[in-house]
Amino acid sequence: MKPMLLSALLIVISISGTCFAQTGQVIVNSNLVGTVQPNPYNLYGAEYPRIEADSRVTFRFNAPDAKMVQVSIANIPFDMIKGDDGVWTYTSEPQDKGYHNYWMIVDSAIVLDPATNAFIGYGHMCNGFEIPDSDGSFYDLKDVPHGNVLIENYFSKTINAWRHIFVYTPPGYETNTSKRYPVLYLQHGGGEDERVWIEMGRTNLILDNLIAEKKAKPFIVVMETSAAYKPGEVRPQMPPRRPAGQRQGTPPDSTRLRRMFSFDTYKEVMLNDLIPFIDGKFRTLTDGNNRAMAGLSMGTFVTRVVALANLDKFSYIGIFSGGTVAPKDISDKSKVKLVFMSFGSRERGADGLKRAADALKQAGINAVSYISPLTAHEWQSWRRSLYEFAPLLFKN
Amino acid sequence: MKPMLLSALLIVISISGTCFAQTGQVIVNSNLVGTVQPNPYNLYGAEYPRIEADSRVTFRFNAPDAKMVQVSIANIPFDMIKGDDGVWTYTSEPQDKGYHNYWMIVDSAIVLDPATNAFIGYGHMCNGFEIPDSDGSFYDLKDVPHGNVLIENYFSKTINAWRHIFVYTPPGYETNTSKRYPVLYLQHGGGEDERVWIEMGRTNLILDNLIAEKKAKPFIVVMETSAAYKPGEVRPQMPPRRPAGQRQGTPPDSTRLRRMFSFDTYKEVMLNDLIPFIDGKFRTLTDGNNRAMAGLSMGTFVTRVVALANLDKFSYIGIFSGGTVAPKDISDKSKVKLVFMSFGSRERGADGLKRAADALKQAGINAVSYISPLTAHEWQSWRRSLYEFAPLLFKN
Repeated sequence: MKPMLLSALLIVISISGTCFAQTGQVIVNSNLVGTVQPNPYNLYGAEYPRIEADSRVTFRFNAPDAKMVQVSIANIPFDMIKGDDGVWTYTSEPQDKGYHNYWMIVDSAIVLDPATNAFIGYGHMCNGFEIPDSDGSFYDLKDVPHGNVLIENYFSKTINAWRHIFVYTPPGYETNTSKRYPVLYLQHGGGEDERVWIEMGRTNLILDNLIAEKKAKPFIVVMETSAAYKPGEVRPQMPPRRPAGQRQGTPPDSTRLRRMFSFDTYKEVMLNDLIPFIDGKFRTLTDGNNRAMAGLSMGTFVTRVVALANLDKFSYIGIFSGGTVAPKDISDKSKVKLVFMSFGSRERGADGLKRAADALKQAGINAVSYISPLTAHEWQSWRRSLYEFAPLLFKN
Repeated sequence: MKPMLLSALLIVISISGTCFAQTGQVIVNSNLVGTVQPNPYNLYGAEYPRIEADSRVTFRFNAPDAKMVQVSIANIPFDMIKGDDGVWTYTSEPQDKGYHNYWMIVDSAIVLDPATNAFIGYGHMCNGFEIPDSDGSFYDLKDVPHGNVLIENYFSKTINAWRHIFVYTPPGYETNTSKRYPVLYLQHGGGEDERVWIEMGRTNLILDNLIAEKKAKPFIVVMETSAAYKPGEVRPQMPPRRPAGQRQGTPPDSTRLRRMFSFDTYKEVMLNDLIPFIDGKFRTLTDGNNRAMAGLSMGTFVTRVVALANLDKFSYIGIFSGGTVAPKDISDKSKVKLVFMSFGSRERGADGLKRAADALKQAGINAVSYISPLTAHEWQSWRRSLYEFAPLLFKN
């Protein structure tokens, strides 16, 4: 190589640094409980955000010319303190176990710290941090047989557009070439998309571990966004983003809410395009007894619209942090193998969960309720919900 | 569902909005040349950044309390103008075709716009925008047979850690279960990681299209980060991030640069852990005549350290935007099937490329040079380099 070219490359690299990122999905951390450690999603070995031994989190942010810098943790802003070096710092209260979204607010602008990985949530990109959980080894990456996560594209005739999906195939899928598998369709929440059940949910790791312990049957998981609009169909608009505490304007009108919650177009996409694509490309079992659907939060609306309304096609239903199902919601109880309902203990709604499951059981419907201890409307509730839900699937 | 729960969910969703993101990798855009359109990486149908018909880009950013807001396009900052509504705007000069990184600078803080997807580059997360290219249909998502992109984890004994990789398998891989395939190992540049050849590089789409046209043989592609440290090994530190034009301090010392460019640990990881994992899990052809390695920018150093130094294991070499190879760099020319070298026409080094290829050819080594018209040290140069390189592979 010519010296001139070498020096040009060195300039590029010395300006930019090199990035030694780990993609968030693979972090192993349940064995780091009680140690001081960098947030596992930090890029290039950055020290901050730093997870303290007592689950507090220390943030540092370089903004020498800013008048005010806040860090918003799960949409609650906290003031940072400016140091003489122009670096702002803040140490939080102890945080719940698991994954949390955060972002920065610099002189009123909602922004991200570029030194930490970015994840979808709250209708925009967020930064993330993770508090180790001594009971979290169920989502660790371990030396067990691993399934595959596939990134797939398929064309939806319903909306005349390509769709981007993630598909998990269980260990052994490639070698057992005559075996067919049940399928779980797994939906994200509001402000998220098809990425989250892999990136924060760790669906593949949770299932690899359950299958290795023979606690769950091997099955396929399909993850897609429920955002789907026919040509000319009006896409709901995002409200203007403002820092929490500075929100203005009127709440969304009922027409917009009805449109946001109809999911009628997505129902068509899923039934007419997605499921045929999956059943065509993968070795699936295609009867309703071998198809499940679950979602978190807004994804429970999607699950109701698609699966609860089509019990001939879906026999297993998972409702994570999305209210309860009543006997009257189920048109034909003979077709339902399971209704699973869960909440984090810090969520409104957790109290009524067992009562709702009892009502279903009294009506002759197999129902299970689960409360995730000391977690909120966040990912640790949903990782645990999947861990509790998966072993109950496809036991027919 | 209980009304209380419904209203709680509505509150969450009306605060957060819902995200109707498309993951950047699947955007089809070469047919949008000359139209005004939102940047395809915008989330939730956001209008801005907006790609103008003449390839200018208009940015808008809400920061009513900020004193100064800039947008940095590929690390060059441009001042934005504040409007009466607190929203800052800027319209750029016409931009080169293809993908570009950008970020925001708010009162001296380097930050990301959370309303646009985030990508790794420059040693941190960046926002991205894309200028349509009338010659870009080679990386469009089309109605052709599609290979798979797999997210895989394997354990490296060399560094005692899990590794996260992407693997592309060509169309037909799952059905032709007795066929074995050649493998290309494809390296990212400085400040990037294993994600980029899928997310910005569109490797899978480029190969799907080439294979459909019978212009390239079907082969497997493996993408991993060259960041690899043994326990106790010192990880190079990122220089403090400062806005371009405000950089201070001394350039990196030569020890640090040597360490950054040694890649000795990665060589061990790749030869002793990665390649055996790939050859064990996938149906590969394992001789050197069926193994290629290529990289962009810093990835060309990795390619030199690993492949050029092990010609018994790699017969095809790709050097994208990373200087030239001389006859003296090749220890055994009988083992080299191809040396491919490329640059964007706007890069330093493009001038000497053909001369270097001629020198290799005169020494009896098959060499090809390629100049990407009107592109810089950016992704359009590397998409095109892959498109030119792939048809030359595994013709033995």
